[in-house]
Amino acid sequence: MRELEERIKQEGIVREGNVLKVDSFLNHQCDVALYADMGDEWARRFAGRPVDKILTIEASGIGIACVAATRFNNTPVVFARKSQSINLDGEQYVARVHSYTHGNDNTVIVAKRFLNKGEHVLIIDDFLANGCALDGLIEICEQAGAIVEGIGIAVEKGFQPGGKRLREKGFDVQSLAIVKSMDAKTGKIEFE
Amino acid sequence: MRELEERIKQEGIVREGNVLKVDSFLNHQCDVALYADMGDEWARRFAGRPVDKILTIEASGIGIACVAATRFNNTPVVFARKSQSINLDGEQYVARVHSYTHGNDNTVIVAKRFLNKGEHVLIIDDFLANGCALDGLIEICEQAGAIVEGIGIAVEKGFQPGGKRLREKGFDVQSLAIVKSMDAKTGKIEFE
Repeated sequence: MRELEERIKQEGIVREGNVLKVDSFLNHQCDVALYADMGDEWARRFAGRPVDKILTIEASGIGIACVAATRFNNTPVVFARKSQSINLDGEQYVARVHSYTHGNDNTVIVAKRFLNKGEHVLIIDDFLANGCALDGLIEICEQAGAIVEGIGIAVEKGFQPGGKRLREKGFDVQSLAIVKSMDAKTGKIEFE
Repeated sequence: MRELEERIKQEGIVREGNVLKVDSFLNHQCDVALYADMGDEWARRFAGRPVDKILTIEASGIGIACVAATRFNNTPVVFARKSQSINLDGEQYVARVHSYTHGNDNTVIVAKRFLNKGEHVLIIDDFLANGCALDGLIEICEQAGAIVEGIGIAVEKGFQPGGKRLREKGFDVQSLAIVKSMDAKTGKIEFE
């Protein structure tokens, strides 16, 4: 998606350790017009697939998923939580995932009543690198007996293994920008 | 706002300890059509006020603020983070707030480059009870020299002191549903 690639080239900042900062428009400050265009693009790419629910994970995925949902007939969005909250009670689906971003293990939690057997789910998230967060969301869908129709990603780091691994497992992963390489010294970012 | 009050009456669950669970449409599963209607209502209530930026806080505020922003000419949304992340670097505004919900103290963090002196800010959040999270967001606006034009809240617990205190300080607090009383035994919820 050219609009997203252009924004990443203009505003993305590459840091040592494979960190790509896009916090001026994607995951701290949010450009909701861009989010809507991303929703339109995912709607084109997943056209024909049934989508009963959009599943994402706090925090950065929520805004993207909610605005994108307005392009999927206002499909309900469920965001997985990363920690227990008094807003969570009742029976829960829980998966354990490692976060390379934060250097720790998280639990990913969804209340059972918001994900049901046989529901068709579109997973949306901001980044795909190693795919650990997605593994957790997929595991939760499996626990629920829900069907993962597709995975919509804003920015995939193509040089990290998550995307390849998930596609080889048969998931329809649609990343709107796939970074082929990036260089913290020169700041140069190339796309596939 | 009648639509929101009706949803709270239909789906809200009252728990001991002043807990009102609205996770089926507001803060775990998200009804984005309702979010858009809430955005329209805030746009009416804050009509005539300049809004350069919408400020909210992770996690539950993000989806509401992002969809509402589409009703404010796609105003950029900034969401404050509650903990350090490698997605945060550079200079930051930091405020310390107590969370009664989670029973702990949090820091509220916004990167300095996304909140500027003289900017007109609309703060949006899902709940207002004691107002601690809002105090943190207001403090961050003060640190930045930004002007708080208004505070848009989905659900205010009118029997807790935050709303009264903030209005007495002169803030234009617009809550779309104000709960006058709620009873964990009968499940009854009354609005102002």
